[in-house]
Amino acid sequence: MRTLTVELQDRSYPIFIGPGLLQNIRLIQPYLKGPQAILITNDTVSQWYLKPTLNALKQLDLKQVDIHIIADGEQHKTLETFEQIQSALLKKGHHRNTTLIALGGGVTGDITGFAAACYQRGVNFIQIPTTLLAQVDSSVGGKTGVNHPLGKNMIGAFHQPTCVLIDTLALRTLPQRELAAGTAEIIKYGLIYSESFFIWLEENIEKLIALDPETVTEAIEQSCAIKAEIVGQDEQEQGLRAILNLGHTFGHAIETGLGFGQWLHGEAVALGLLMACDLSERIGWLDNSIGKRLKHLLQTLTLPTTLPKNLSTEQILSLMKLDKKVLNDSIRLVLLRSLGHAVVTEDFLTDQLIKTLNTFTTPTTLSS
Amino acid sequence: MRTLTVELQDRSYPIFIGPGLLQNIRLIQPYLKGPQAILITNDTVSQWYLKPTLNALKQLDLKQVDIHIIADGEQHKTLETFEQIQSALLKKGHHRNTTLIALGGGVTGDITGFAAACYQRGVNFIQIPTTLLAQVDSSVGGKTGVNHPLGKNMIGAFHQPTCVLIDTLALRTLPQRELAAGTAEIIKYGLIYSESFFIWLEENIEKLIALDPETVTEAIEQSCAIKAEIVGQDEQEQGLRAILNLGHTFGHAIETGLGFGQWLHGEAVALGLLMACDLSERIGWLDNSIGKRLKHLLQTLTLPTTLPKNLSTEQILSLMKLDKKVLNDSIRLVLLRSLGHAVVTEDFLTDQLIKTLNTFTTPTTLSS
Repeated sequence: MRTLTVELQDRSYPIFIGPGLLQNIRLIQPYLKGPQAILITNDTVSQWYLKPTLNALKQLDLKQVDIHIIADGEQHKTLETFEQIQSALLKKGHHRNTTLIALGGGVTGDITGFAAACYQRGVNFIQIPTTLLAQVDSSVGGKTGVNHPLGKNMIGAFHQPTCVLIDTLALRTLPQRELAAGTAEIIKYGLIYSESFFIWLEENIEKLIALDPETVTEAIEQSCAIKAEIVGQDEQEQGLRAILNLGHTFGHAIETGLGFGQWLHGEAVALGLLMACDLSERIGWLDNSIGKRLKHLLQTLTLPTTLPKNLSTEQILSLMKLDKKVLNDSIRLVLLRSLGHAVVTEDFLTDQLIKTLNTFTTPTTLSS
Repeated sequence: MRTLTVELQDRSYPIFIGPGLLQNIRLIQPYLKGPQAILITNDTVSQWYLKPTLNALKQLDLKQVDIHIIADGEQHKTLETFEQIQSALLKKGHHRNTTLIALGGGVTGDITGFAAACYQRGVNFIQIPTTLLAQVDSSVGGKTGVNHPLGKNMIGAFHQPTCVLIDTLALRTLPQRELAAGTAEIIKYGLIYSESFFIWLEENIEKLIALDPETVTEAIEQSCAIKAEIVGQDEQEQGLRAILNLGHTFGHAIETGLGFGQWLHGEAVALGLLMACDLSERIGWLDNSIGKRLKHLLQTLTLPTTLPKNLSTEQILSLMKLDKKVLNDSIRLVLLRSLGHAVVTEDFLTDQLIKTLNTFTTPTTLSS
């Protein structure tokens, strides 16, 4: 088992990573605040992990363990689902010292964290991420929230978990498509923060897809370590933390434009990363070879490298203007100065951005 | 004009108090973060203050000022209203540096603050309270939230305003019933924290009701000063701050039991204060004369001193068990050790609590 710590003064917390950790659930005992807990999971994950998790939870010193199952999919990451969790907590008489335990992917973690942030103005929560994307990204850093029809993650809170338990064996039941989507976020860490990690990924991508245990653990640990380092320096995204959003302004626009749940978040981010590289190259910051290397990696993973036919450049551009990084109506993007070095910038022309978007639209929707 | 500061390190903020301050709106200029703002008010307050406020806002350096009007009343302090505010912000393209301005009473302030806490994971907000209750209580301290059918203020966040502007002239348009309800919270500050303030209120209650300018300003300033001192010591209610809830566990149960909007919050608190005094006397902590003096004050204000007929002791007791202060299934209450000294305690018998509740039920609902 490997243990990382996200350093955030009185909100610091550990991330435990290893195969079979669900059986080692006693690790989370010190992070429960009272005798009540509620396990929140979705109707897909529950088929595999509800029973083993409930059995494991019996090892803990809890008097009341409730279960709340939400529907699977980004389209259910809504205020309505959030309200259902609040109702479940109230109906079962949960007090301010209860603990919400998120068992599942990014959607489950984000919505559970937001429910914990708001129930009685803030209660404890613990993440047990079961998808690769959640293990390397959404379960770390305290960004919680739900989507609004007009924009992804527009309603939410910063609320840190008290610990994160990553059982890498959970990935064995993950569909190939979700595994690839999660890998997009792993590749992102190399692009923004570590050339050597990017090179390591190029060398180990086949072993990673094949879920070679040592490679998987290493990739997750490296990703969490990079994210923890960045979040530790800028918890509430006043500056540096925004680089974690490389590809995300493009990606969120794609997800919102297609309707939540059509593409996986990681798939939209994958294409977003490619767009960010293209624009970085277009403005003369980045060596042309990087985009090609990235595209090769994404193709190995069968991740998308072009936009779907029903999305136009205009649509994406107008959705990008609603991004949380926009200030005073200027689109701000995370772009690459070089491999391993990302910055937030407005230093590009709208024309250049449009050319980038056009590069990835399929011919039938060429719009300018 | 008087200025108080709520001392909360990097979240410290000023409270400006005085007659006609709406015309002095430049005071809030330093507390705007960007060029956008949205004014949130209700359909009653807007009739009086929307135009003057919009006119006043023209003095400020803002490029975009939107208006969002919510329905008046505690029954509209819901997630639905919260969601409408989020939608308005997104439709109008508000960015992360926008400012939400709450113009109205406690409901408007609580829901606006909660909307600000969650929009894009947290934006600025400013309070311009127009009711006495909001001026002395809900606009100070950062407790924001909405009600759930199963409990008052059960969904929310701690989110401090960046400044509070109290125009005491706004009270001239306030219905007598709301003025009395707000005065209940003022009396609470004397009970929990300052014997001399309680005595001052007994001596000045007629002048306060008559809205004598000097008396009103003094009462508001003293109330805000006591609240600011308590909140400054315990922002997130880990301990001391809970004493601000004297009478509120009773009061919230009454509000929830009757259905939100039947009684004003301050009316329910008024009766709750009387119940807290009764129980404090019953367990031998408090001199018998205090409850009588309090009852006399409440009667002067024509505030309720008995429960409505359709609420039974059992109902109230079961609703009290959902209170946010309940831990491990024990009801914890704020009670008085003496006049001016409140504590949170479990040191009473359920039988004593039931006797207190029975004392205030009307004969037709006597339940044990």
